[in-house]
Amino acid sequence: MAFADAKPNYYGNFNRFDTYKCTKFQILKMIAQIISIGDELLIGQVVNTNASWMSEVLNRNGINVSEIKAIADDKQAIMTSIDSAFQNADIILLTGGLGPTKDDITKHTLCEYFNTDLQFNEEAFATIQQIFKMRHFEVTKVNRDQAKLPASCIRIPNSNGTASGMWFEKDGKVLVSMPGVPFEMKTMMEDEVIPKLKAKFKTPVILHRTIMTQGVGESFLAKKIEDWENALPKNIKLAYLPQPGIVRLRLSAIGENKEVCLEKINQLVSDLNKLIGDLIYGYDDLLLEEAIGESLKKNHKTLSTAESCTGGYIAHLITTIAGSSNYYKGSAIVYSNDIKSSVLNVSNSNLEKDGAVSESVVKEMALGVKTKFGTDYSIATSGIAGPNGGTEEKPVGTTWIAIAGPNGVEAAKYHFGEHRGRNIRRAALTALFMLKKLVDKENEQL
Amino acid sequence: MAFADAKPNYYGNFNRFDTYKCTKFQILKMIAQIISIGDELLIGQVVNTNASWMSEVLNRNGINVSEIKAIADDKQAIMTSIDSAFQNADIILLTGGLGPTKDDITKHTLCEYFNTDLQFNEEAFATIQQIFKMRHFEVTKVNRDQAKLPASCIRIPNSNGTASGMWFEKDGKVLVSMPGVPFEMKTMMEDEVIPKLKAKFKTPVILHRTIMTQGVGESFLAKKIEDWENALPKNIKLAYLPQPGIVRLRLSAIGENKEVCLEKINQLVSDLNKLIGDLIYGYDDLLLEEAIGESLKKNHKTLSTAESCTGGYIAHLITTIAGSSNYYKGSAIVYSNDIKSSVLNVSNSNLEKDGAVSESVVKEMALGVKTKFGTDYSIATSGIAGPNGGTEEKPVGTTWIAIAGPNGVEAAKYHFGEHRGRNIRRAALTALFMLKKLVDKENEQL
Repeated sequence: MAFADAKPNYYGNFNRFDTYKCTKFQILKMIAQIISIGDELLIGQVVNTNASWMSEVLNRNGINVSEIKAIADDKQAIMTSIDSAFQNADIILLTGGLGPTKDDITKHTLCEYFNTDLQFNEEAFATIQQIFKMRHFEVTKVNRDQAKLPASCIRIPNSNGTASGMWFEKDGKVLVSMPGVPFEMKTMMEDEVIPKLKAKFKTPVILHRTIMTQGVGESFLAKKIEDWENALPKNIKLAYLPQPGIVRLRLSAIGENKEVCLEKINQLVSDLNKLIGDLIYGYDDLLLEEAIGESLKKNHKTLSTAESCTGGYIAHLITTIAGSSNYYKGSAIVYSNDIKSSVLNVSNSNLEKDGAVSESVVKEMALGVKTKFGTDYSIATSGIAGPNGGTEEKPVGTTWIAIAGPNGVEAAKYHFGEHRGRNIRRAALTALFMLKKLVDKENEQL
Repeated sequence: MAFADAKPNYYGNFNRFDTYKCTKFQILKMIAQIISIGDELLIGQVVNTNASWMSEVLNRNGINVSEIKAIADDKQAIMTSIDSAFQNADIILLTGGLGPTKDDITKHTLCEYFNTDLQFNEEAFATIQQIFKMRHFEVTKVNRDQAKLPASCIRIPNSNGTASGMWFEKDGKVLVSMPGVPFEMKTMMEDEVIPKLKAKFKTPVILHRTIMTQGVGESFLAKKIEDWENALPKNIKLAYLPQPGIVRLRLSAIGENKEVCLEKINQLVSDLNKLIGDLIYGYDDLLLEEAIGESLKKNHKTLSTAESCTGGYIAHLITTIAGSSNYYKGSAIVYSNDIKSSVLNVSNSNLEKDGAVSESVVKEMALGVKTKFGTDYSIATSGIAGPNGGTEEKPVGTTWIAIAGPNGVEAAKYHFGEHRGRNIRRAALTALFMLKKLVDKENEQL
């Protein structure tokens, strides 16, 4: 099925909604509902990223999510929602409503629903004491009360906080209540809840491989790999997961035998590399800024950057990676022409003849910073980020990128569009990918 | 009520959940429910930012949200959800399920629910034709069908796309169905739906003022303004809206007379300035990077930066603002010591004696870049972003920031914590605010 035939892009440049292609696996049976408790979700103070994260993890593990609900810290709302969820789902995941000052409502409501009482839990209390000791606080009464849990639940340990999770079972179905603090909930889900759910419900084997691409949009990608996609076996599905400047292709294989699934996925990825290898920079959520670090470190190479239109964003991406100081020496952000010449020795004649956004200038920038900072490689960008500064000859979005290395300098011209933020992002990612290709090629020749 | 007494920060450095203090206005009566339709929400591909945006807008306009639900593109799910919402709310807002390939389900379900039929709508079709003409596409059958709307609804125009919104009334209650594409939905809400809801339900006058603070967390802020907060009149509420490095304080006044509300809010903001004026950098969602641009432009002053630990993030923030090239000349990102001396003339003796993270070096960096780039002001940062590189004397998070101006250079030392990303963000915001204070002071003296 060609993407372009299925859902033409009528939304202009917004394209998250028309790229959804991950049809559900027919083999999946278990249904989950997510109930997020918290007033902060209903006034728009907090975006419900917990629910989308959980949905992704559940789907990845062969469990469908049929409904996500956000409700207030309110007994009646919690009661009604649980009751309705038990009628429609096998697995009910609650988050929130377990903080030291508000856990009364959720826990008492759960006690009432499951017809049980609160009981002091020694293990839970030991964890709370330990956390308070670490932070040099006294354990207060409200925190001591956090160790009281419904007698009929199985306690789910929380390695990052004082509120325990609670696992209830009823008529072969499961309800899990977890704290709403994202990193507490995530650790609990990954370490405890998902393994227990997989054990209880005997979910099928599901394997995933994510292929990271940069440089083209998903409709272009979809056309390029149309035949490959159409020939995918029934138990292997493809999802297009676009991010600004990046498209992730996620292959998911479902089956009964892990080795068979793995072999098939490896074969498909290998075939895909023959089709779009030049667009793939890595696998499984690797960041491009991490990838270039790996490439540079292989032969102890160093990097510097000279940025005009990207204004420091490339340097920022590189330095978000811990340990980047091992290969990254720094950058000259040269936002004005006089700084381009005074700091990077760009010749005034080129600036006058060709303008700042030109092949000659961007190459001089790359060579200038490489010499000045004494590095093996360098990146340079010069473009018109917008919204102003465009001309007929060089409209907003026109961007020159140069990469210099041990064997010289190369440059390419791009047109990234009209949106300042997206221009900066796309220019930065394109430059990093150009660099990675050059470094990898020269690593091979060493 | 002191914040610290109410909800101590037991979550470590995660503190969104324990800072929620915006108690509901008792005077508000209208209840809304949001139903988001779309499979993409249930597999975690798309975060439901629509719902939180809508909740914020509704609350701001005096309408409470009691429930947010995300469901699949499925007739039964839509039908059941609408039915339950009509039992519990006055206003039901649906988004999604109106794309050219899937609007059948939602629209047919609405027809069935409201016992009406689809009817070709000339105005809707005229808009669709116009959009296709602009994009040089032929109008296809699926798009022509988008002009068919339930006969009993009032059409809500969509100025950004082909799917019309639909306004239904039933027993004095309202259901509005809108597209899920964020910028289409947002324009529709702001231009059409909110004004119509306010007219129909006679919502009270609500005025808001957001005070932007930088430099301290909300528990510290709450202690500082405790008496002021306790003395707030009943019709004025305060919400703490924390973002990384920034805390927004939102005052909301509710009443019947706009002028009275406005006067009271202005008085309160003026009182607040006497208490925490040194922490306030602006109002109403102004960005700090915008604010420094305004300050610099007042007297045509220019800026350069020299970044070590922030690695280009300050330059990036500044250059996200369109027109920043008018006052920003560039930056030297000096990630290694030899570059600090070769590019910014930092003396080797200071580097050896005091280390890179020191008052002497950060001041030399600020003065060096100011001279080299020929600017009126400069910012310099040098710190240990982490996770490695800390020592007992200078643990991870230790950061020196210097600001140089026409009258010399000043520096200050900070401890930002252990998280690399947050260290970079907090150092950058702190530096920008230090600069703004200096520029504003010197603007006054001119």
